[in-house]
Amino acid sequence: MARRIIVVGGGAAGMGAAGAAQGTAPDAQITVFSEFEDAAYSPCGIPYVHGKEIASFDSLFMATKQHYIDQGIDIRYETVVASIDTKAKTVTTTTGVTEKYDSLILATGFNYADPAVPGSDLGGLYYVKNIRQAMEWDKVLDTVKSAVVCESTPLGAEMVTALAHRGIETHLVEPAPWSMSMATDPDIMKPVEDSWLELGAKLHFNTKVTEFKGTNGQLSAVATNEGEIKADLAVIATEKVANTALAKAAGVKLGMSGGIIVDGQMRTSVPDVFACGDCTEIPHGVSNVPIQGLSGSHAYAQGKVAGTNAAGGEREYQAVYVPWGMVAGKWMIGGVSFSETLATALGIPFVVGNGQGISRARYYPDVKPVKVKLLAEPEGLRLIGAQLVGGEGIKERCDFLAMAVRTGITLRELATMENVYSPPIGALGEPIATAAQNALANLKG
Amino acid sequence: MARRIIVVGGGAAGMGAAGAAQGTAPDAQITVFSEFEDAAYSPCGIPYVHGKEIASFDSLFMATKQHYIDQGIDIRYETVVASIDTKAKTVTTTTGVTEKYDSLILATGFNYADPAVPGSDLGGLYYVKNIRQAMEWDKVLDTVKSAVVCESTPLGAEMVTALAHRGIETHLVEPAPWSMSMATDPDIMKPVEDSWLELGAKLHFNTKVTEFKGTNGQLSAVATNEGEIKADLAVIATEKVANTALAKAAGVKLGMSGGIIVDGQMRTSVPDVFACGDCTEIPHGVSNVPIQGLSGSHAYAQGKVAGTNAAGGEREYQAVYVPWGMVAGKWMIGGVSFSETLATALGIPFVVGNGQGISRARYYPDVKPVKVKLLAEPEGLRLIGAQLVGGEGIKERCDFLAMAVRTGITLRELATMENVYSPPIGALGEPIATAAQNALANLKG
Repeated sequence: MARRIIVVGGGAAGMGAAGAAQGTAPDAQITVFSEFEDAAYSPCGIPYVHGKEIASFDSLFMATKQHYIDQGIDIRYETVVASIDTKAKTVTTTTGVTEKYDSLILATGFNYADPAVPGSDLGGLYYVKNIRQAMEWDKVLDTVKSAVVCESTPLGAEMVTALAHRGIETHLVEPAPWSMSMATDPDIMKPVEDSWLELGAKLHFNTKVTEFKGTNGQLSAVATNEGEIKADLAVIATEKVANTALAKAAGVKLGMSGGIIVDGQMRTSVPDVFACGDCTEIPHGVSNVPIQGLSGSHAYAQGKVAGTNAAGGEREYQAVYVPWGMVAGKWMIGGVSFSETLATALGIPFVVGNGQGISRARYYPDVKPVKVKLLAEPEGLRLIGAQLVGGEGIKERCDFLAMAVRTGITLRELATMENVYSPPIGALGEPIATAAQNALANLKG
Repeated sequence: MARRIIVVGGGAAGMGAAGAAQGTAPDAQITVFSEFEDAAYSPCGIPYVHGKEIASFDSLFMATKQHYIDQGIDIRYETVVASIDTKAKTVTTTTGVTEKYDSLILATGFNYADPAVPGSDLGGLYYVKNIRQAMEWDKVLDTVKSAVVCESTPLGAEMVTALAHRGIETHLVEPAPWSMSMATDPDIMKPVEDSWLELGAKLHFNTKVTEFKGTNGQLSAVATNEGEIKADLAVIATEKVANTALAKAAGVKLGMSGGIIVDGQMRTSVPDVFACGDCTEIPHGVSNVPIQGLSGSHAYAQGKVAGTNAAGGEREYQAVYVPWGMVAGKWMIGGVSFSETLATALGIPFVVGNGQGISRARYYPDVKPVKVKLLAEPEGLRLIGAQLVGGEGIKERCDFLAMAVRTGITLRELATMENVYSPPIGALGEPIATAAQNALANLKG
């Protein structure tokens, strides 16, 4: 009899898992349960439709429902799995349907952390996630005069940019002294914050939301420890929390970050139960500390590993070094692993160097600045972190530097790196090399 | 008494050397001899002014003459060094001026290989190099109806693009079956050649120039083994040959590629004589074969090493892996070390993989294709070469892959690389990873 594989969750991890399982065992009977109306769309594109950079939500859909039918993947839309019986190896939906599995893959994703202040049940609080809801919210945005983005997580930063682009009076309320402070240093974020101010956004740092205030059940203001901000809309961009209620109830072991513990094959503590994506935690390659809330690219790659192994194949996942990047305000920003702030907080010793460069020849049209900051072990000089801000080539440099951290490339190697020089695409000097040279000079000095 | 440092050549290598020497020994007496009217401009920008991408030659100048006077570097413009006496440690100019040196740095650059066919003395043959001449040629271009670019070296490819952009009937005459065949494979160049055809250029592969024909001393046609092409202009974009006449006459040892042999400190075979830039040869990191004719970025970096050591400091240069990149037609192309063609010709065994990706999320405006080809050792799977063609992020990926070749990163590591995913700057999948996965699959299959 064909292997029965059940996937819970239709996001990047779940659909990556289903596809890989299908590729590994074409005869397997693969069922995906999704609580939503759709699978296979790009939620990461939602802020850019709101910001009018992308014309329509339609383009965010990656594949039609027919596509999955043709592929032989059975997706049960708007179907919530209520419980798992890991002994009987079954899942049961809220409507009482029970299905047997040989392998189960949990891809249940994340929830935004509860803001845990009064008024969280008011209308006008927007949690950016589901595309159908986003379509409705997009109509609402046409009527919004003033919006508050609660916390400058990556999504928060994207939404500040999007709402300001759209001409809405946009406030950022952030408890930390600068934006995205879990991953960044203030000098890296300064140009981004300046460009938000240029766009007319109002930035409230060192500020906490204390209450959502409303009239007739609808948001009218966001109260903070620094005063009240009139607002028709609040975007709740709090940190991502692993959605593990189902796993926990089934006895699957959770880790210190709250995510499901998995091994290199994405197996959980329960036999024949795999997990992948935002519901898991993955060890960080430098610190070995398990972390969660990674990117869609991570979720998809983990899904492929889980799906392959669940279908009887063999595929390994690695510790993560977490290159990240995005557009915020008018700049691209990105990084890998540790910022100065985070390394200092964790007591990790480091040497640091900065490099200011440009993306093309100085005289070539559309040349943009590129700033690189590198952190390395003071002894072996192995790279342990990087941050970048600039106008071009940030994603590719972050990918490079993540591999450099993973493979133990040193400042000496980066200081003597070769670089492509051609006026329309690269400058004489590469800011990564300059930053490494600066770090070595700082070490001497 | 202050150390006397003489630099012969005012290009990227020479000026890099002078600047580094000055930084290392601020009291040194530094003299640069240049045969040209200017130092410190970017010759690499010339094709882009001809192509009207850059508005004016003025922007190519990097520093004023006063800047160097202020810096304490004495540049003797339009002054040709005729001979070197390495025993007396002097140089003598063609006008009979003799100057003593403690350290001598040769940065005499390259010449284009002589086309060695009849008619090479006609007017209308353009060797792209000197900026003052380029300014004159730019006026000529306004009158040119039909031009032949002889050989699709990197400069040749830039000039085909520039002349076609400018609306000139442009012919490429290339002895090989495809363009830039020393560094590329035909599948990588296909999109470039297609875009040249779209621009109206005419491509003559497997074709050799046999004669430049003229009337009244002025070019009227380029004769080839495949027939005659009417032309007012011929751009002689033959390969770069190290300019070593001065070094050779002084008894400085030359290598098998024709370049000056240097050690890791850029010292030549003669005590206190250094060399850097296009006049030298540098061992290739993979093959150990000495190569010459590298980029301006290499010349500048070598200059800094030579200048530092010539001034009593300490700086090491490395073997090269030669990331390269450029715009040709409507695409960016680039690579590192070996192509399939070159590896095959040299008898180097390899496994190959291809990855077709995109530069941003599929639905994000201005998304462009990015194709990656990777070559690796079949045993250890260490990367030994790469080629890329696409619309964005080629230079940064080539820099990454050059470091990967240098540090011995394997296909297994690249196949599991993490990548930044954010709709405006990076797609869910990274084509480098896809190419590595494809190579591993090819190996299995």
